[in-house]
Amino acid sequence: MSTFGTIFQVTTFGESHCAGVGCIVQGVPPRMKLNESDIQAQLDRRKPGQSKLTTLRGEADLVQILSGTEANTTLGTPICLFVPNRDCKPEDYVSMLDIPRPSHADYTYQKKYGIRAASGGGRSSARETIGRVAAGAIAEKWLSECYGIEIIAYVSGIGRIQIPPETESLLKESALKRTQIDQSLVRCPDQKTAELMIHEVEAALNDQDSVGGIITCICRNIPAGIGEPVFDKLEAMLAHAMLSIPATKGFEIGSGFEGTKMRGSQHNDMFTNDASSCNTKLTTKTNNSGGIQGGISNGEPILFRVAFKPPATIGKTQMTCTFDGEPCLLNAKGRHDPCVVPRAVPIVEGMTALVLADQILLQKAKTDNISV
Amino acid sequence: MSTFGTIFQVTTFGESHCAGVGCIVQGVPPRMKLNESDIQAQLDRRKPGQSKLTTLRGEADLVQILSGTEANTTLGTPICLFVPNRDCKPEDYVSMLDIPRPSHADYTYQKKYGIRAASGGGRSSARETIGRVAAGAIAEKWLSECYGIEIIAYVSGIGRIQIPPETESLLKESALKRTQIDQSLVRCPDQKTAELMIHEVEAALNDQDSVGGIITCICRNIPAGIGEPVFDKLEAMLAHAMLSIPATKGFEIGSGFEGTKMRGSQHNDMFTNDASSCNTKLTTKTNNSGGIQGGISNGEPILFRVAFKPPATIGKTQMTCTFDGEPCLLNAKGRHDPCVVPRAVPIVEGMTALVLADQILLQKAKTDNISV
Amino acid sequence: MSTFGTIFQVTTFGESHCAGVGCIVQGVPPRMKLNESDIQAQLDRRKPGQSKLTTLRGEADLVQILSGTEANTTLGTPICLFVPNRDCKPEDYVSMLDIPRPSHADYTYQKKYGIRAASGGGRSSARETIGRVAAGAIAEKWLSECYGIEIIAYVSGIGRIQIPPETESLLKESALKRTQIDQSLVRCPDQKTAELMIHEVEAALNDQDSVGGIITCICRNIPAGIGEPVFDKLEAMLAHAMLSIPATKGFEIGSGFEGTKMRGSQHNDMFTNDASSCNTKLTTKTNNSGGIQGGISNGEPILFRVAFKPPATIGKTQMTCTFDGEPCLLNAKGRHDPCVVPRAVPIVEGMTALVLADQILLQKAKTDNISV
Amino acid sequence: MSTFGTIFQVTTFGESHCAGVGCIVQGVPPRMKLNESDIQAQLDRRKPGQSKLTTLRGEADLVQILSGTEANTTLGTPICLFVPNRDCKPEDYVSMLDIPRPSHADYTYQKKYGIRAASGGGRSSARETIGRVAAGAIAEKWLSECYGIEIIAYVSGIGRIQIPPETESLLKESALKRTQIDQSLVRCPDQKTAELMIHEVEAALNDQDSVGGIITCICRNIPAGIGEPVFDKLEAMLAHAMLSIPATKGFEIGSGFEGTKMRGSQHNDMFTNDASSCNTKLTTKTNNSGGIQGGISNGEPILFRVAFKPPATIGKTQMTCTFDGEPCLLNAKGRHDPCVVPRAVPIVEGMTALVLADQILLQKAKTDNISV
Repeated sequence: MSTFGTIFQVTTFGESHCAGVGCIVQGVPPRMKLNESDIQAQLDRRKPGQSKLTTLRGEADLVQILSGTEANTTLGTPICLFVPNRDCKPEDYVSMLDIPRPSHADYTYQKKYGIRAASGGGRSSARETIGRVAAGAIAEKWLSECYGIEIIAYVSGIGRIQIPPETESLLKESALKRTQIDQSLVRCPDQKTAELMIHEVEAALNDQDSVGGIITCICRNIPAGIGEPVFDKLEAMLAHAMLSIPATKGFEIGSGFEGTKMRGSQHNDMFTNDASSCNTKLTTKTNNSGGIQGGISNGEPILFRVAFKPPATIGKTQMTCTFDGEPCLLNAKGRHDPCVVPRAVPIVEGMTALVLADQILLQKAKTDNISV
Repeated sequence: MSTFGTIFQVTTFGESHCAGVGCIVQGVPPRMKLNESDIQAQLDRRKPGQSKLTTLRGEADLVQILSGTEANTTLGTPICLFVPNRDCKPEDYVSMLDIPRPSHADYTYQKKYGIRAASGGGRSSARETIGRVAAGAIAEKWLSECYGIEIIAYVSGIGRIQIPPETESLLKESALKRTQIDQSLVRCPDQKTAELMIHEVEAALNDQDSVGGIITCICRNIPAGIGEPVFDKLEAMLAHAMLSIPATKGFEIGSGFEGTKMRGSQHNDMFTNDASSCNTKLTTKTNNSGGIQGGISNGEPILFRVAFKPPATIGKTQMTCTFDGEPCLLNAKGRHDPCVVPRAVPIVEGMTALVLADQILLQKAKTDNISV
Repeated sequence: MSTFGTIFQVTTFGESHCAGVGCIVQGVPPRMKLNESDIQAQLDRRKPGQSKLTTLRGEADLVQILSGTEANTTLGTPICLFVPNRDCKPEDYVSMLDIPRPSHADYTYQKKYGIRAASGGGRSSARETIGRVAAGAIAEKWLSECYGIEIIAYVSGIGRIQIPPETESLLKESALKRTQIDQSLVRCPDQKTAELMIHEVEAALNDQDSVGGIITCICRNIPAGIGEPVFDKLEAMLAHAMLSIPATKGFEIGSGFEGTKMRGSQHNDMFTNDASSCNTKLTTKTNNSGGIQGGISNGEPILFRVAFKPPATIGKTQMTCTFDGEPCLLNAKGRHDPCVVPRAVPIVEGMTALVLADQILLQKAKTDNISV
Repeated sequence: MSTFGTIFQVTTFGESHCAGVGCIVQGVPPRMKLNESDIQAQLDRRKPGQSKLTTLRGEADLVQILSGTEANTTLGTPICLFVPNRDCKPEDYVSMLDIPRPSHADYTYQKKYGIRAASGGGRSSARETIGRVAAGAIAEKWLSECYGIEIIAYVSGIGRIQIPPETESLLKESALKRTQIDQSLVRCPDQKTAELMIHEVEAALNDQDSVGGIITCICRNIPAGIGEPVFDKLEAMLAHAMLSIPATKGFEIGSGFEGTKMRGSQHNDMFTNDASSCNTKLTTKTNNSGGIQGGISNGEPILFRVAFKPPATIGKTQMTCTFDGEPCLLNAKGRHDPCVVPRAVPIVEGMTALVLADQILLQKAKTDNISV
């Protein structure tokens, strides 16, 4: 299924080389102002050709709202969003028809379906994420207007370069905005690290190679009480969402893998009364939990990290074999990113928004006890 | 919802201090031999009181099959499994009624539901996982009988102690069995590391403290073609399943966070013809993908790691505050594990089996193209 | 799947001759008072042996709450309900092992699963409905307490005997209560018709035969705005629910099949201002719509009818054939009802409550616009 | 949700006066030949303006496949289908903005969402069914190619005119084809009855009124073993599907409401060995069950009937009131059918195909026991 969510639900469609890509978004609350420009902003952050560091495929990626609104207002009915595919080059893929690209999805699609899109990656293309980003932008607008929720993702690592831990702690406590993040080509808000990252990407590019990276995401103003306590814990839904993004290899909430090395007495987040609130309102002194305890949000910022592998498609010659098992050298064509994380920032934000909107609507159904 | 899966589907029920815990398992194929002993083995590996390193709560955790079988054979109908709660000590919790335990679920359940179980952790108790392990044991039996699938999890890290990388590489290539893993109290198959881990747990125990850890899981003989390519990628379902286990903080598939530092040319898993097969059968020279490409299994072993935080409940005095915001010292009672990972091994295995069984049944529905 | 509902969700389990039957109910709002006696009342109306007109199987059908409540209060967590099977007589079924009972489920279960319960009907037994009635009783309590909703079903036809249309019109406008309905053995509130119905059942009983019937259901105080407008129209969910009850053959909402003979100008329900309300509140002069327009409740009473076939198991000799195709005479044993509709009244009410509770919770999720 | 089905799943979108209507179809098996003309045939049977008896809205309703196929072959990925809206006349609706049309969905949408499409019926418009018919055509093609399944619906009643029972019995046993059905404007295969029906519709049209009707559906070559035995009985899914079609008021399977008057000994379908089969193959002498026993298909033809009310929108003056409760006379504009059943025939067929395809795929997942 290409469907995500229970109430706020998105279904994406489209191959990289068909008429276009898009989605149907269901469960968007009625009477919300919405037009194309609300959605386009995040699509522009995702689109190819933003800088010298990204793929050269030229796509304006302009979204059309086909249904579900009237007079720029949502009706509560399914919203269909469509983005045409313009700059397809199927001829780039002809030479690779018999060769499953290493660490790409050619081999596994063929095994699953007995057929695969002849060019461009089909559904495994990053173009599929257009529908996610578009739907996520709607979710984000609703979360922002109803709850003041902010979702801010940025690049914290590319290859061997990472934001120093002390710098990252400061960033997490700052009122970081997207404008700051977009000031560097690699969407890293620490300018010094950003420069090193750019060199890292350029070095890979020069070698016709690619490089991986890490995205950190911060969600602020989350009401306490969101998330289902057993199988659909809030961190489980976020992990599901993040690992569904192409090229991801890992997910950490709060203290993550480093937290496994700690003692309980260090790791536990002690409660204290929030002095800034006029009513009694508990807050925690630390946030190793990453804003979630027992699968349910506790009102603190939600903090997580996502690992992205280096893109599989590289220009460098690879020694692999054909579908028939014959050894061969592969010189891949096609226009690909040497590093996906800068363009993946709005995808992480969009998927996060989809999880949060859905879980908040579910909580509305179940109780009147949302403590915003 | 306390429900997981689409076709092979489990719904768990039960608080730690109610009549008992259990589950309904739907979608179990008919005509499979099944009795209580098939399930009990994994419950015994999960149950409390197995060693000096685990909680003292005394529970035999004997499972009863209430429905869905006749003459030790599955009927294809819902299988209800039940394990009574015997050794409840609600009195241990009286002193903590007004104090939300730090990094536990007391505060968030109260915010979500406006009520919570007065003692024992309710649904957030590790006893909820009994239903998962029991259902997982059924899934595992079916996977083993129909596909020869093996799911082997072990403890690869406790606190600062981790199996050395080169040792772990050898382990992954060996024909590791559960009997080897169960030879140490901490379920670490490398005996030298196991001893260090035992000291690490004992040290925490002596300090009335707790410690975190990491579990590695290997799945062998997975047919290629399993997993849905977009939102329900196989790694996304596994991440969802793992992050739904209490106390988990992270998930990595294949190369994981380390893979972000690599170049594509190093990371890509080149194809080659499997010389051990009489037909053409592609295999990969390396397995940084962890057995999954584009969200779909490629036939290589599935490899992942799960991070567990140190248990929140510790005997050590904690400086926190009451629900009313009054600062207080908490000396928690209750009987808890200083480290959950040894007992979490069968939970990781069970949740993995649930994901795989469900995805294989879904693939059966969708195509006849399963290439076992 | 043995699961019904999206948020207020029930999963039933149990064969007629296993340890027992029951269900897990998810999505029950927290902080509602609930104990066994709240559920038992409807189970008593469903249980066998209530009168000379019903099966002789002797079952007290006493329900146990295994989880999900504490101090007679719901926790918002899954509620497991269990009713043991006591009076099984598998020996009654030995002679029928090779013969698929006509119009029963023996043949189709065998075709579907390649196996079937050797005795007592397995999942197709009416005992499966115990879980539905129990879950429905919880739903009904919540609907009554939060919305003042009343669900009243009664028997309007048995065999050739039906309540005269003019009498039924008066009944629908009266403040009919369950106590009135339970005054006759056949649960028909019109005493004169009830007597004729009793004769109809007795005549069938004397002939070792069975007879069908019709149940009418009225739901009052339904808030406007409930139901999903496209595939999950409120009448579609009710039809689904009703046709899932064993032995049902038809469903009509409002004017039903008779309405097909009408002109639009007769059938349309004209709006008028409700003089009994101090605010503007639209009501309709007639209710051919049965309380639903465009799939969404309009605030008028919901009215529908359900057709039940004569029970398939009869004592009378039947000329049929074995599984192997050999002609044979079947003299069925087992203890069965000559007419199911009197005992089906609480099943219809329970399934209706499950639909309404789920749809109201879904509407709470989607909008704040419930106009109670 | 505007979504139907579990594996073979359709999600529709589009209001009557937005850019267009359509759907995403998921779960279509890969490697099936498919192009627009396979879908267009059924859309043409549904489209407006087919005859003097239908609405004058002029729409070619030409479908475009936007994704999911390559070289006229399905890829196993989501298929997006789109039909533009061309002939919108929002001006027809201006005079009705303040008046909820009687027995239409204006009032209930407003109560549910607090907003509604200002013109043309929005989602409650019959144009929404275009997506269903298009998706159903794909399902039907697959059912026909893989199982030889035939789904034939026809009009058996309009107003007071019905096909005589003995004629209908003969029709059900004949090898009725769609070409025969399409020979009359009202899609009634009995020509004598068809003429009377045409007069019935014309009479309503002359009175600026509308009239209801009944559709009968026959499904042949259904494999035994399809359908879930408890809540998702095959007849329950069909009832759900049929009552989700706009304007439906009732559903009967097999003997239906008439069957309630019968004795079990008359109603039971006795088994016999099918002499036309070389292997042992049970068939039933009668088919009061309508091809389904215990919720599961038994291999006999599936037979059911669906009731449609007279269309709510009529030209005749209606005495109703405004949203504000002010009495008023309504003279509705807009272009509407005096009777929906002739155009509803492909909708009934499409929804039936969606149910059958989904249930067959589910059965494939669950067992290898499909006895085609």
